[in-house]
Amino acid sequence: MRYFLECRYNGSAFHGWQVQPGIVTVQSVLQHGLSTILRQPVEIVGSGRTDKGVHARQQFAHFELATPLPDPDFLIFRLNNFLPPEVAVQRIFPVADYIHARFTAISRKYQYYLIRRKDPFTPKMSYFFHFPLDVPAMNEAALVLLRHTDFQSFSLVKTEVNHFHCRIEEARWEERGDELIFHVRADRFLRGMVRALVGTLLDVGQGRMNLAEFEAAILARDRRKAGRAAPPDGLFLMEVEYPKDSFLFSV
Amino acid sequence: MRYFLECRYNGSAFHGWQVQPGIVTVQSVLQHGLSTILRQPVEIVGSGRTDKGVHARQQFAHFELATPLPDPDFLIFRLNNFLPPEVAVQRIFPVADYIHARFTAISRKYQYYLIRRKDPFTPKMSYFFHFPLDVPAMNEAALVLLRHTDFQSFSLVKTEVNHFHCRIEEARWEERGDELIFHVRADRFLRGMVRALVGTLLDVGQGRMNLAEFEAAILARDRRKAGRAAPPDGLFLMEVEYPKDSFLFSV
Repeated sequence: MRYFLECRYNGSAFHGWQVQPGIVTVQSVLQHGLSTILRQPVEIVGSGRTDKGVHARQQFAHFELATPLPDPDFLIFRLNNFLPPEVAVQRIFPVADYIHARFTAISRKYQYYLIRRKDPFTPKMSYFFHFPLDVPAMNEAALVLLRHTDFQSFSLVKTEVNHFHCRIEEARWEERGDELIFHVRADRFLRGMVRALVGTLLDVGQGRMNLAEFEAAILARDRRKAGRAAPPDGLFLMEVEYPKDSFLFSV
Repeated sequence: MRYFLECRYNGSAFHGWQVQPGIVTVQSVLQHGLSTILRQPVEIVGSGRTDKGVHARQQFAHFELATPLPDPDFLIFRLNNFLPPEVAVQRIFPVADYIHARFTAISRKYQYYLIRRKDPFTPKMSYFFHFPLDVPAMNEAALVLLRHTDFQSFSLVKTEVNHFHCRIEEARWEERGDELIFHVRADRFLRGMVRALVGTLLDVGQGRMNLAEFEAAILARDRRKAGRAAPPDGLFLMEVEYPKDSFLFSV
């Protein structure tokens, strides 16, 4: 019996999503909670990894159980009491066996939050950046991303993928009061990609790179041609999209 | 030369507002910052104290300087770089000598944030309370507060005040999504008063105290008749009001 779990987490409390021996990760606390409450070893598969310090407002994972859950809502209630305050589980529901948290997902949406004025109330949840920025130029550069599909220049060099193609469907900056928010959605993201995109767009916004140089950096397929990665604090996984009928359970 | 300073802070990083030897308070870090940057001992007087863990979205303080500040905006910039991320200074401006941060203030407004669903993104900034609540009953009780002026029942027993009279001008609960917010404004507040009010109103909301008992608790003038104090995490000083012409500088 396969179940999906929807959760959100404050990444500042974790060393990322992925289980690693000896450190606290989101996957490890969720597995520990499920295994303890259900009294059986439970392993979960996430829609994707998030790095150390990166947040999620919507993340999905799946897991297998030998017998159906009698009361998923009660499991959610117990899990939320068991888990640290920085993770909350919203939903647990059965899915068909062929629905996979990672491979069935068709797109991911991220937001990156810059804050333009010092804000004591978003600790580790935004990037304080007070230098002047040319936001229209950053939005022009964001549009350039939509015309390209190979983003090797924005991928960590240490990675296990066998290609660097991503279909970016949305890329834009939004000014909202003291916040400046980068919205980006794609079918897939490479390791460190959003933070490298944000860092490079900040170079454009500061006039350190023009539009032609930005496009050249993409075409170079070389991480060294792009800008520095922005810190993880401002990054939120916002949505993971599945095909419309994925959650209509049928075995 | 007297100056006013407007700031906001995340109280979870501090042992309250008031300077105390050997511990980190908001007043102590502000005084340390001003004294270091201005190279002279600076003491500040706040509009009032906030307890350990209590936040402020608007707090005022005044201080004296022998000579006028050449560039208040540059001082704000340097202070914000110097101060920890949990305090931000918004404004520094000269006032007349008779304007006093505490005694000239005519009202204070607080908000208390309850969160009804576990939220990883408001760490130490809201009180997670998932038990059912009768909000209309809590609002009826809040209206009772407007008819009374002696709030000894809601004051810490250890206090230096010589009377317990407060003129409450606003007291109401607002439901906003998963949040339940208590708004309260008065000319003055006693020590621990808002947290005691919230704790007692939560007793009303849970049916542990009816309206008549709530009014009797006020009339008793005895802290033991009111409910337990709600935790400080959810409490924000929101506004401090001064007479309209206070900030029109004239010596």
